Amino acid sequence: MKLYPKAILPRGFRASATVAGIKRSGRLDLAFIDFGAPAVAAHLFTTNTLQAAPLRLNQRYLGEHRTFRGLLVNSGNANCFTLRQGIRDAASLAERCARLLGVVPGTILVGSTGIIGRRLPVEKIDRALPGLCAAVTENGIQAAARAIMTTDTFAKEATARFCVGRTPVTVCGIAKGAGMIAPNMATMLCYVFTDASLTRARLERIVRRCAQTSFNAITIDGCMSTNDTLGVFANGQSRVRIASDAQERAFSQALGAVFLRLAQLIVRDAEGATKFVTIQVDGARSPREARGAALAVANSSLCKCAFYGSSPNIFGRTVAALGAAGVRFDEEKIKVTFSPLKKKDITLRIRLGSAGASATIYTCDLTPAYVRINAEYN
Amino acid sequence: MKLYPKAILPRGFRASATVAGIKRSGRLDLAFIDFGAPAVAAHLFTTNTLQAAPLRLNQRYLGEHRTFRGLLVNSGNANCFTLRQGIRDAASLAERCARLLGVVPGTILVGSTGIIGRRLPVEKIDRALPGLCAAVTENGIQAAARAIMTTDTFAKEATARFCVGRTPVTVCGIAKGAGMIAPNMATMLCYVFTDASLTRARLERIVRRCAQTSFNAITIDGCMSTNDTLGVFANGQSRVRIASDAQERAFSQALGAVFLRLAQLIVRDAEGATKFVTIQVDGARSPREARGAALAVANSSLCKCAFYGSSPNIFGRTVAALGAAGVRFDEEKIKVTFSPLKKKDITLRIRLGSAGASATIYTCDLTPAYVRINAEYN
Repeated sequence: MKLYPKAILPRGFRASATVAGIKRSGRLDLAFIDFGAPAVAAHLFTTNTLQAAPLRLNQRYLGEHRTFRGLLVNSGNANCFTLRQGIRDAASLAERCARLLGVVPGTILVGSTGIIGRRLPVEKIDRALPGLCAAVTENGIQAAARAIMTTDTFAKEATARFCVGRTPVTVCGIAKGAGMIAPNMATMLCYVFTDASLTRARLERIVRRCAQTSFNAITIDGCMSTNDTLGVFANGQSRVRIASDAQERAFSQALGAVFLRLAQLIVRDAEGATKFVTIQVDGARSPREARGAALAVANSSLCKCAFYGSSPNIFGRTVAALGAAGVRFDEEKIKVTFSPLKKKDITLRIRLGSAGASATIYTCDLTPAYVRINAEYN
Repeated sequence: MKLYPKAILPRGFRASATVAGIKRSGRLDLAFIDFGAPAVAAHLFTTNTLQAAPLRLNQRYLGEHRTFRGLLVNSGNANCFTLRQGIRDAASLAERCARLLGVVPGTILVGSTGIIGRRLPVEKIDRALPGLCAAVTENGIQAAARAIMTTDTFAKEATARFCVGRTPVTVCGIAKGAGMIAPNMATMLCYVFTDASLTRARLERIVRRCAQTSFNAITIDGCMSTNDTLGVFANGQSRVRIASDAQERAFSQALGAVFLRLAQLIVRDAEGATKFVTIQVDGARSPREARGAALAVANSSLCKCAFYGSSPNIFGRTVAALGAAGVRFDEEKIKVTFSPLKKKDITLRIRLGSAGASATIYTCDLTPAYVRINAEYN
């Protein structure tokens, strides 16, 4: 398996991006990915009780269809808290897109990210659709990665390749993150495309497993978005069928590598962040306790400020955050160690000394810049 | 009932403060309050599983004795995560103080606030004790209020007075807060003194009730300290016995007013804060749901940044924070309104539209200054 830092679309997939005028900045804000063939899809959506319109529409489509033909995503407007109008707007665009492609309505999925509570500028998007759908190319994915960005400072891309016999299988992902990131789900939007051939049930099982140690192991500000979506699409065009345990292992390894890379890029590009922090907890009574302990520290404003300031206070704040989260430990047994705090990458290791369970969470520091970005952004 | 913005000690109480040299700044860092007579005591301590040594020592004393004679508090060092040595250090100081006063060992309570994980400078405190205990005066409470400050920018004081017949009863409180404030408990340290006469059971019941809508209704950064203590001491020197329902109401009103005033002052002096935010939730299915909804918004970093920036994004972030906390609401029914965001005092009102329960939480904005203070503080 090889991992590449760029998005390289698997066989059959094509993409394009354009400026529809949703963002006032005049930057790319609309992307379309044509799957090239009917693709099975596996999704994880935000557990926020307020789900944006595109997520609710997608869930309806996912219930109604077995395969999908494309994905339309906009940035600049989240189409969230837009009531029934929001669903109607998303559906009208998805259906128009399906007509332009000549595919069954309901087989084009949608995604949105940006401001909450404002109606989607449907006419602007509608006007851009014919050109967007016609312009798809094998290399268009990099523009698509930029078009889904909001406050991201760089596009997040990764591609993994492995061979079954002599046939290459490609797993390619793009993501946008930046703020409002917390399990579960961690990413605002992440889309992964593969030319492997596998059943929806198998794909869903593998996606859930791989997300646990990647997208569900990152936290930026403890805020869970209304639009968080992870979508994985397999169009089978490599003709490699993932059916045996060995093939599933190889595919899981590739998918897991793409997930982890994208998840870590989201943390590295967190709004205003200056540090990438790995929090390792071991010696817990259960994986759940280990994860809870790591998240308690990762989401503590005081710990995050100490990371920012390279402050030796991190020790006291770590044990205080653990206690506040109800983690039980013996003061005489717990060990908290950390790599040099002045570096850009920090590892904080917490040994609870109770039993053998462990967990790793990735996070970042809290900085004056984070506050300024989120005080101004709209 | 009259409420005064200054601490005025009730009959019998005397206080003093000194520079023991615990703080590197050379400011006041040690306070002693002599109760003047045996006083009943009611306490609420942090629910952080990591409790600082003075809290654990106090709980032992509170179990062993029915009345108490004084209170010794230091700032600059929290005597927390100091293992068994921390308890021994706190006990040695409490007992030395008792000997200096000629009272039973175990009847002097202790408190500490400041840095975690560093041994208390016992010798410095010990050297300062004879002078401190000898210097108590009726007016010493204002210096004591300053001596318990850490990153506070002003001392927090309040006094309420009411009459039973012609006899005045005084309730006087001091507090320190600033950072690391979250329910339950909200305040780092708050001490309230009264010359009312009442049983410990009655005092404990009233304290719990009054704390619910004051100290347990404020949150600054969602971080719960290891040292949070609310202590209320009644020495009975007014000779007014609080025994009837009417007397209990009058006393509760005075105590509640002092609690609320001190709690709000803690929020107003929150580290780096520029705004005082009242979050009112009504239309919830239960008081618990109302409180959870208000806290979800109050503890959301994104909402707090929006308060700081007077950003109209507050609307979308509020509903997203409610959803992330699992609050169920109907998008068509919920109403979120707010007073002008440019002002220093903001009220955010959330009408869930489900049923009739309500809650109010007080909080502040998240600012670049908060991050800078907590990146540097040690």
